[in-house]
Amino acid sequence: MVGCMGRWEPNALERLQEAAMALFLEYGYDRTTVSEIAARAKLTERTFFRYFTDKREVLFSGSEQLEKLVVDGITTAPKSMAPLDAVVAGLEATAPMFEQRRAHARERQGLIAAHTELHERELIKLARLTSAMAACLRERGVPQNTANLVAEIGIVLFKSAFERWVNGSKKHDLAHYVHATRVDLRLVVTGSSAKSSSTTPRKRARSPGRPGSASTA
Amino acid sequence: MVGCMGRWEPNALERLQEAAMALFLEYGYDRTTVSEIAARAKLTERTFFRYFTDKREVLFSGSEQLEKLVVDGITTAPKSMAPLDAVVAGLEATAPMFEQRRAHARERQGLIAAHTELHERELIKLARLTSAMAACLRERGVPQNTANLVAEIGIVLFKSAFERWVNGSKKHDLAHYVHATRVDLRLVVTGSSAKSSSTTPRKRARSPGRPGSASTA
Repeated sequence: MVGCMGRWEPNALERLQEAAMALFLEYGYDRTTVSEIAARAKLTERTFFRYFTDKREVLFSGSEQLEKLVVDGITTAPKSMAPLDAVVAGLEATAPMFEQRRAHARERQGLIAAHTELHERELIKLARLTSAMAACLRERGVPQNTANLVAEIGIVLFKSAFERWVNGSKKHDLAHYVHATRVDLRLVVTGSSAKSSSTTPRKRARSPGRPGSASTA
Repeated sequence: MVGCMGRWEPNALERLQEAAMALFLEYGYDRTTVSEIAARAKLTERTFFRYFTDKREVLFSGSEQLEKLVVDGITTAPKSMAPLDAVVAGLEATAPMFEQRRAHARERQGLIAAHTELHERELIKLARLTSAMAACLRERGVPQNTANLVAEIGIVLFKSAFERWVNGSKKHDLAHYVHATRVDLRLVVTGSSAKSSSTTPRKRARSPGRPGSASTA
């Protein structure tokens, strides 16, 4: 086996990720071992564990880069931006990271949907991203309750946009879907049904409310 | 030990839950075993596993009842209600289930926040609730993308409202906080900052948009 212990290996991270994905798709996630992933990448198990804490983690190594992009995007958004728009700017800033990775993202989503342990890991990662976003908003002077709520909404927006991008046409990047989902979100929350929607009647049971007119409680 | 195998035990579920919570608070979640929980409840381990698949589950046995209340609330909401308002009606319908349980809920939240494995389980339970809500909305004729988005927003609303209720004054029930969070959600999504908020400037980077006026994308 190539790759003796402790030696620095070029592109080890990428090689391990590619090997893992190839094996997961060929033999199934459950039937692939860390040792097989390392062997396929022509690296040792020890090298694997230098990069990843466990088998699941090989599918989540992008989460730190993702968080950095979102956090930087929120931090550098103009101070005049409303909290949710700053979050949207942060989310849109992640689009380049996913460019050229749509096929990989689709395969990865399929694996996550099919395995509870991967789904759990993803939810924990998203919960961490939520906390990081909320912390950024608090630094922008947004009070804690609002910061948490906006961060949670941001994650919903991101998940929905990502889902649409993964299954969408090649013409549009992730930022396009983030923007489109932001539009739908506004429609859904202000009380009317989202575009292209409604086979249900449009009559509203409550008054739609305008910014500033809603009663505090 | 009282409680021989296979015998029906009155209130076994509640006794196991109470015993578990008492031990978790006294000795810590990690240091409490299933066998100790059963012993404290004067039941056998076998009885424990008739009710719960593992130690974590003893904190989540209410999730089916919760789902039923939400689903019934959405299903019986007037057909004229916008999707998110039907979801809000479903969430408000859960308030009686939590009445008198605020102290328990607060202790439980503390445990979940402190233990990743409990946090993971909670996130999976909420993901299931999200799917159930989305399915209800689709039955009301809401298209899939919108149904998923509204269900996710509903969960954010519920989590935020629950957090506020757990830490809030005794005067108000959970339904009150669901309603209050719904108001904040509207403010946050239409672009202005939520009430009592803003130390940040209010000037908006984007036009706030009115129901029906937002462009589709």
